[in-house]
Amino acid sequence: MVTVTASAPAKVILFGEHAVVYGKPALAGAIDRRVYVTARERSDRTVILRSEDMKTKEESLHLDGLGMVDTRGEFRYVKKALELAFDRAGSMTGIEIEIDSRVPPASGLGSSAAVSVSTLMAVLTLLGEEVSIEEVARLGHNVELAVQGAASPTDTATSAFGGILFIQPGMDSEMDRYDRITVADLPLVVGYTGIERSTKVLVDSVRVLRQRFQKIVDPIISDIGRITGEAKRMFETGDGEGIGQLMNINHGLLEALGVCNDRLSRLVYASRNAGARGAKLTGAGGGGCMIAYTPENQNDVADAITACGCNAFSAHISIEGVRVEKG
Amino acid sequence: MVTVTASAPAKVILFGEHAVVYGKPALAGAIDRRVYVTARERSDRTVILRSEDMKTKEESLHLDGLGMVDTRGEFRYVKKALELAFDRAGSMTGIEIEIDSRVPPASGLGSSAAVSVSTLMAVLTLLGEEVSIEEVARLGHNVELAVQGAASPTDTATSAFGGILFIQPGMDSEMDRYDRITVADLPLVVGYTGIERSTKVLVDSVRVLRQRFQKIVDPIISDIGRITGEAKRMFETGDGEGIGQLMNINHGLLEALGVCNDRLSRLVYASRNAGARGAKLTGAGGGGCMIAYTPENQNDVADAITACGCNAFSAHISIEGVRVEKG
Repeated sequence: MVTVTASAPAKVILFGEHAVVYGKPALAGAIDRRVYVTARERSDRTVILRSEDMKTKEESLHLDGLGMVDTRGEFRYVKKALELAFDRAGSMTGIEIEIDSRVPPASGLGSSAAVSVSTLMAVLTLLGEEVSIEEVARLGHNVELAVQGAASPTDTATSAFGGILFIQPGMDSEMDRYDRITVADLPLVVGYTGIERSTKVLVDSVRVLRQRFQKIVDPIISDIGRITGEAKRMFETGDGEGIGQLMNINHGLLEALGVCNDRLSRLVYASRNAGARGAKLTGAGGGGCMIAYTPENQNDVADAITACGCNAFSAHISIEGVRVEKG
Repeated sequence: MVTVTASAPAKVILFGEHAVVYGKPALAGAIDRRVYVTARERSDRTVILRSEDMKTKEESLHLDGLGMVDTRGEFRYVKKALELAFDRAGSMTGIEIEIDSRVPPASGLGSSAAVSVSTLMAVLTLLGEEVSIEEVARLGHNVELAVQGAASPTDTATSAFGGILFIQPGMDSEMDRYDRITVADLPLVVGYTGIERSTKVLVDSVRVLRQRFQKIVDPIISDIGRITGEAKRMFETGDGEGIGQLMNINHGLLEALGVCNDRLSRLVYASRNAGARGAKLTGAGGGGCMIAYTPENQNDVADAITACGCNAFSAHISIEGVRVEKG
């Protein structure tokens, strides 16, 4: 029986979260924390899903049950990815899927995108299909759309392509545009508040604030877009000091949009005081993670975050996106 | 021998600090923490200055020594105010000045302005002069100009007039404009970080940031100006909820300008979490004070700030500015 393992990286939003909802560009980076998905062919028509990270460690179902709508179960992304992979291949098989994730869930690091993308890659490879990364990215986005109802393609694209992506959201019916940015290195420390949060709730809160104070909030959103554009130029010219300062300004503007909180703010200040060049919340805010840019003092910054009672890990940009590990 | 006591209130910047340096409007409020200055005529030509709050509790000098340049001594504001009062009156007298301040110094609450304004009022009254509040405000500004080299007239105007002032800085040679805003009440809690800071250093840091990122920083400054204008309208319509939200947005923009710090941020979040409608740093930042708008939960908010190891006191807008207490 064939066995294939594929992996895909988690991501952080470097610049532009929330503003991207209003058509401004964003910069996202794949990081070297990966989700590993192993797919094992079975001789019967059973699907077995397994993950040590989930409350339900294992779920098994019949192949025919795959298409059932499931927008709440813990394995919903895996099941939808399996279904779309079988559709794409035009064949199906009993299968065992084992997920080994190094990414905390619901932390804003795109674990569901990494799970979706790596499941698609593992299963399609197991079925003997040749797929491009573009296609895996597109299918991955379809998984998130089907499960969540609405989803930005940013997470799945970053997880599939790797590296740093400059995302320019498409207006109206236009497609989003992704430009790959080449960076020598971007040493980060990621601090996790331990607070799970809902992206939807936070996006809604910005919408409500904007409804009330549009003339004040719109310039903040535009300014975040300007920061992202400037950061892209600084990545290209290798201006690390500028990158750090822009992260700090971007963080303040996210504060102004009301998506920061006490814990995030503490980690941001602890990081800066421990020698980070810049620090900001990453993703939706309200909990989840922050990132510190640490070309030096990486251990000091991680220690300072840990001293606040939160988890920290060092991260680098993962140039490689989704890949087949073996099989 | 005649004795006169005058007092003048401290102030908080409600909206618009830093942006006011770039020609945007600001809103300042006099608060019910006052500096009391008692002037006692003496029969000799000695000047005695006394204050329990200063390291040098007492200083005495000869009347003729008053005009000596002194930009560092602890009583420099008092001496310059005395000098300008004697000039204005066209007469001088031996005098004993006793200062009783309820305002922490170098905390951004305008204690030097309150000292200057109340000294002027006490001494001019003692000398039998009739002075308008406008004139005391102008002379008070001259005291700060002489001592500091440069000074905004905001602190001295707010301390002299009381209430809430909408300050529109004058362009080029124009004079600044002050509009008095009528507000029923504005219950605040003031949290003091205990960190003394230099306004000049912080104003300089914003200038440097703007030099580097003018296209990003200028929209932030403009947006703070917009917030101040909107806050003025909300004071006029009594929209307390809106005022709180605008304080939060304003605070985020000050974060973006880099003038917040760890301690201020903690007090701001502690206040919001304890039920303040809004909270922000006030004044130059980098230490000094923050304010929380607390139409309810005033004690909870003060307790939350105290639990962070900082001092808190409740404050209301002082409708009265400088006044003669007795004499």
